[in-house]
Amino acid sequence: MTHRKDQEGCAVLTVGSLALDSVKTPLGKVDEALGGAAVYSAVAASFFSRAMVVGVAGEDFPRQHLEFLESRSIDTQGIQLVPGKSFRWAGRYDYDLNQAHTLRTELNVFSDFHPVIPEAYKDAKYVFLANIDPGLQLEVLGQLRGPKLVICDTMNFWIEGKRDKVIEVLGKSDIAFMNDAEARELCGTTSLVKAADVIRSYGPKVAIIKKGEHGALMFTDHTHFAAPAYPLAEVKDPTGAGDSFAGGFIGYLARTDDLSERNLRKAVVYGSTLASFNVEDFSLERFRRLTYPEIMERYKEFKHISFFEEVDMLDPGHVIFHHA
Amino acid sequence: MTHRKDQEGCAVLTVGSLALDSVKTPLGKVDEALGGAAVYSAVAASFFSRAMVVGVAGEDFPRQHLEFLESRSIDTQGIQLVPGKSFRWAGRYDYDLNQAHTLRTELNVFSDFHPVIPEAYKDAKYVFLANIDPGLQLEVLGQLRGPKLVICDTMNFWIEGKRDKVIEVLGKSDIAFMNDAEARELCGTTSLVKAADVIRSYGPKVAIIKKGEHGALMFTDHTHFAAPAYPLAEVKDPTGAGDSFAGGFIGYLARTDDLSERNLRKAVVYGSTLASFNVEDFSLERFRRLTYPEIMERYKEFKHISFFEEVDMLDPGHVIFHHA
Repeated sequence: MTHRKDQEGCAVLTVGSLALDSVKTPLGKVDEALGGAAVYSAVAASFFSRAMVVGVAGEDFPRQHLEFLESRSIDTQGIQLVPGKSFRWAGRYDYDLNQAHTLRTELNVFSDFHPVIPEAYKDAKYVFLANIDPGLQLEVLGQLRGPKLVICDTMNFWIEGKRDKVIEVLGKSDIAFMNDAEARELCGTTSLVKAADVIRSYGPKVAIIKKGEHGALMFTDHTHFAAPAYPLAEVKDPTGAGDSFAGGFIGYLARTDDLSERNLRKAVVYGSTLASFNVEDFSLERFRRLTYPEIMERYKEFKHISFFEEVDMLDPGHVIFHHA
Repeated sequence: MTHRKDQEGCAVLTVGSLALDSVKTPLGKVDEALGGAAVYSAVAASFFSRAMVVGVAGEDFPRQHLEFLESRSIDTQGIQLVPGKSFRWAGRYDYDLNQAHTLRTELNVFSDFHPVIPEAYKDAKYVFLANIDPGLQLEVLGQLRGPKLVICDTMNFWIEGKRDKVIEVLGKSDIAFMNDAEARELCGTTSLVKAADVIRSYGPKVAIIKKGEHGALMFTDHTHFAAPAYPLAEVKDPTGAGDSFAGGFIGYLARTDDLSERNLRKAVVYGSTLASFNVEDFSLERFRRLTYPEIMERYKEFKHISFFEEVDMLDPGHVIFHHA
C-alpha cells in the first residue's frame, strides 16, 4: 500500500480553449456544442481530482455550460467572461476518424486573450497546458509559484508557425504530449523512438505519444511503455480524445500525487480509458453519464486485452537449453 | 505446468515463395538476396519446431540458400527445383518503412508452379499458407490429410483480383493473418474491430491483424488481445516482417501443441519477437546469428513494455466509493 497524506490528492489546473464546436462525422452531427481543450481535459480530470480552468469565453457562451463544469466541482473563476463571441470550431471527420478536417476556426474572444491566473490557482501543483499558442503557455507558467508537474500539449499549427516557442515551452515542461504526426513533424524523423529522444532532449523527462486507434506510447530515459487502444467498433466523434486522455492522465496523477514510473503507466491507462469513453458520443455527452464503476471496469478490460503470460519452463529456449 | 506428450512438438509446413530479393532502404541495399514468404516463415518457425517447405526454385537458385535451410533442420524435399529462373522481387522503402514500393516482380518459375506435397508432409498438423495465389493455397489444402491448424495469409493483389478464392481459403482456415490495410480492403470498413468480425464470419475462428510499427491485434469470438510493437530506433529492412511473425507464431504453437487462447497470446508475442529481430538487418541476416537467449530476453522486454498494474484500493473508484 502506498501512503498518501491527503486522501483528496492535489488539484489540476488546465489552461486552453473553451469552444462551441460544430462537428459532423459519419454517425451524426452537432452544432455549437460544448467543446474546447480546457473543457475536455478539466472534465476528464474531474473524475479523479479537483480541477481549475483558465480560459476565455464570450458573452454568448451558454450559462449552462459553466454550470455543468461547476456541477463537477470544477473551479471556473479562472474563466474570463468578456464581451464578444466565443471561440468556435467547425470540423468534419470522414470514415478515417483519425483525421479531422477543419472547416472553420473563429478565434473571436480568443484572439485577444491573455491568461490571468487567479491568486487561488497560483500554487497549483499539477498543470496541464493544453494546445494553445505557446506564447500563452509561457505566460501561464510565468504566473505560477513552483508547480510540481507541468504537462504541455501542442499541435502542427504551432510547430510550423512558432517552433522556437514550442521548444521553449518543452524546456519548462516535465511531460510532453504529442500525437504521432506532431512528434514526427517537430523532430524531423519517422521513427517515434527517435522522435521521443529528440523531444526529451528539449527538456521533458517523459514523452507521451498518442496514436489514436493504435494506443499510446510513453518514453522515459530508460523505459518504454505501450498502452493499447480500446477496441471500439464505432467511434461517434473523436473530438476531444487527446484532451480527455490528458485530463484523465493528469487527474489520476494529481489524485495519487505519485510520480513513480509505475504510477505514470497507470495514469496512461486511465487517460486511455477516459478517451475511449469520450469518443463514444458527441461533445461531452458520454462524460455527462459516465460512472466510476464503468471507469474501473474498462481499466480492467485494458488490463485483460494487453495481458500475456511470462516465459515459462516449457518455452523453446528453456526446452532447448535442457537438451544442450 | 502444462503436460506435453512430445517434447519435440509438431512440425510446421509452410507453403509460399522462395525469392531472390533486391531491396533498397534508407539504411542500405542488397541485390538478389535470399527471401520469399516460405523462407522467412520456415526459418522463423525453425527456432521453435521442425519445419517443411513447399515451393519452387529455378536452377539459378544458389545452392548455399538451400544448405542454409537444411542447416536449420528445415526439410527441403518439398521444394521443386526446375529449369528456368527463380522468382525475383525488387522493392524500395522510403523513410516511411511501413510502405513497400515494388519496383519489379519476375514470377519466372513461379508462374507455372503447382504445389506437390511430398508423402511425408501430408500428415502435417500445423500449416501456414503464406501469401500466394489463393488457388494454389487451395491445391495445397486438397492434398493434406486433416491438418490440426491451418493459417492463411494473403495480400491486396489477391483481394482485388481473386476475392472469391481468398474467401474460399478463409473458409478452410482456422486463423487468418492480414495486415491492417488488407483487412480494411477485404472487409470494406475502416474499423479493424468490424473487419475482424467480417473475416471471422468467413470461417476462421481467429483473426490476427498485423499493424507493423503499431503491433498486432488478435480477435477471437469473445476476446481481444493487443500486442505492442518492439520499439526499434532503426529498421534496416522491413522485408519479411509479416512472414517472420507468422513463422514465429505457428512455430511456437507447433512446439507447444496447445491452442488455448492464453497460448495463442504467447505465440503472438513470439511472432512479434521474431519479426522485430528480422527487421534489424537485410534478408535473413539477423536470423543467421539469432540465439535463444536473445529471443527469451526480448520476449521478456515485450512483457515489460506492456505491463501495468491492476486497479488497487487507492484508485479513484474505490476511494470515492469509500466516501459514499
